[in-house]
Amino acid sequence: MIPTVEWKAGVICLLDQTQLPGRTMIFECRDVATVASAIRELRVRGAPAIGVTAAMGVALGAQSVATTDVPVFEKHVLAVCEQLAATRPTAINLFWALERMKRVLQTNRERTVGEIQSRLVDEALAIQQEDIAMCKTMGQHGATLIRHRQNILTHCNAGALATAGYGTALGVVRAAWEQGKKIHVFAGETRPVLQGARLTVWELMEDGIPVTLITDNMAGALMQQGRIDLCVVGADRIAANGDVANKIGTYSIAVLARVHSIPFYVVAPSSTIDLLALSGSPVPIEERPSCEITALHGGTWIAPQGVHVLNPAFDVTPAEYITAIVTERGVFAPDRVAETIQR
Amino acid sequence: MIPTVEWKAGVICLLDQTQLPGRTMIFECRDVATVASAIRELRVRGAPAIGVTAAMGVALGAQSVATTDVPVFEKHVLAVCEQLAATRPTAINLFWALERMKRVLQTNRERTVGEIQSRLVDEALAIQQEDIAMCKTMGQHGATLIRHRQNILTHCNAGALATAGYGTALGVVRAAWEQGKKIHVFAGETRPVLQGARLTVWELMEDGIPVTLITDNMAGALMQQGRIDLCVVGADRIAANGDVANKIGTYSIAVLARVHSIPFYVVAPSSTIDLLALSGSPVPIEERPSCEITALHGGTWIAPQGVHVLNPAFDVTPAEYITAIVTERGVFAPDRVAETIQR
Repeated sequence: MIPTVEWKAGVICLLDQTQLPGRTMIFECRDVATVASAIRELRVRGAPAIGVTAAMGVALGAQSVATTDVPVFEKHVLAVCEQLAATRPTAINLFWALERMKRVLQTNRERTVGEIQSRLVDEALAIQQEDIAMCKTMGQHGATLIRHRQNILTHCNAGALATAGYGTALGVVRAAWEQGKKIHVFAGETRPVLQGARLTVWELMEDGIPVTLITDNMAGALMQQGRIDLCVVGADRIAANGDVANKIGTYSIAVLARVHSIPFYVVAPSSTIDLLALSGSPVPIEERPSCEITALHGGTWIAPQGVHVLNPAFDVTPAEYITAIVTERGVFAPDRVAETIQR
Repeated sequence: MIPTVEWKAGVICLLDQTQLPGRTMIFECRDVATVASAIRELRVRGAPAIGVTAAMGVALGAQSVATTDVPVFEKHVLAVCEQLAATRPTAINLFWALERMKRVLQTNRERTVGEIQSRLVDEALAIQQEDIAMCKTMGQHGATLIRHRQNILTHCNAGALATAGYGTALGVVRAAWEQGKKIHVFAGETRPVLQGARLTVWELMEDGIPVTLITDNMAGALMQQGRIDLCVVGADRIAANGDVANKIGTYSIAVLARVHSIPFYVVAPSSTIDLLALSGSPVPIEERPSCEITALHGGTWIAPQGVHVLNPAFDVTPAEYITAIVTERGVFAPDRVAETIQR
């Protein structure tokens, strides 16, 4: 199991995703500021993994509050939640995880600070374990959509590295593979941060699942040539109407898939659904630093200095382009997925 | 004027496009092998520029043939043509330019070797001058398609650097700009070799034409947001039915443009038309080295070593997705462009 994020005796250990695939390094977070910057710098990324990390960040922050006064303690922990909420705006799982941590505060006010601290750790670990379990369940549901010898296009990394383990879109791929289906994955490299080239390819090669790396702009040509049977991606936020915010480029793939009559699936835990967003329009789209596009890791410039750049990290795919959304509760038409969590 | 390729007293001077935008270096070719490798290594690229360079390559090779026997001379020069023809398979302008040089051989057999050598130089320089003139004419024709304050998406580099000067797609942009139209260009970075980020952005910034760099996978989202008014690209080969082979990713943009009801224009000299290719299907698509995707200039790996990669340099956009093709003869419906050179 790839240790995306682990809680080790009060230290949050992240597999540093900015260093992959070249180096497998553990990035240790011993305070909330480090957790927040690790999320912002993409050392940990992927909506579910951000949620788990933020929950652990709250537990970590709570441990450092030196008071026995519960209201004072609560005020400090809520400030920690604010700090973590300000890291990245698009993935709803972050806010969902913070809400779960706040609920622990609210429902345990009669207890001691020490007891609440302990329950916050338990809740963060529960979120982590539930995430892995949900990924495996999604994998089972989603694998029914994949047939023997199919070629699957995925975008960005919706794998073990994007979750507490196993993955959402790649969880479906893994489940199909484990069922003996001889599938093959085309991984779009996913500019600018190359999560596809660096993370998805790495994960799949580690598991021995056949994968071919392509640049993002090859997807259309491969579809035209009949070389892609289905597309499967994750999600950062699913609106009530089934619109999906996900990594920039997802929308283009969905449109191309529709034109070529190729199924396009989204896989995400129901914590990704935002009932308050009636459609994708109000979902905040994070604009990231231009240097992600103009320069590479080492700082090498690949564009003229001073160039004007757009770098939206996400786009919104309207529900009409999505064949089905897979959650831990099953496989749903996009416009029916919201009602599965209203019940 | 950007000196893409120049003939200086028997030396071919290329502005080394593998070094841009960081360094402005002239790469000197003093023999045919160097010309051939310069084309293969993309020191010069762009269909028209490859044609001009290959023509100069023939003139250069002819000068080094030490014989006064015309049949012997001709045999050697034809071998030079073969050597240059084997550099890159997709851009038809390469073969078109070589054919023009061969015709000089055929029509001057009664002359001395010295006279033929001189005429080969003249022909190469004529191809160069005609290319610049054709780009300017295409610019005038194409600029009629662009209105004040429009936002233009282009892909790869179909600029001065892709031609002997002024450019095809960017020639149209330049002409519109010179007419006082306050346009703005979105340049797709064009993975893997980043001709958009490195070359198109550089050219437009040099000319003071407003440009914003985006990753290739942002095109769809920008179209969805109504931020792109038209698309304009070059071509490496145009089939008789109007299908267009151009840089990988062109097809995706054309499909996205169609779905969003955005005009999609191709700009190329009529030497790009291949009457022998009845459609895009028989056009050979160059597969380039995987290291263009897995590693960056400096050799830094950005994907796991040993990963399987696809790297087709071009794709084929069916005529049905193309609003119009601009050549030096005017603006044509794609299925009518071939007849303009049959007359």
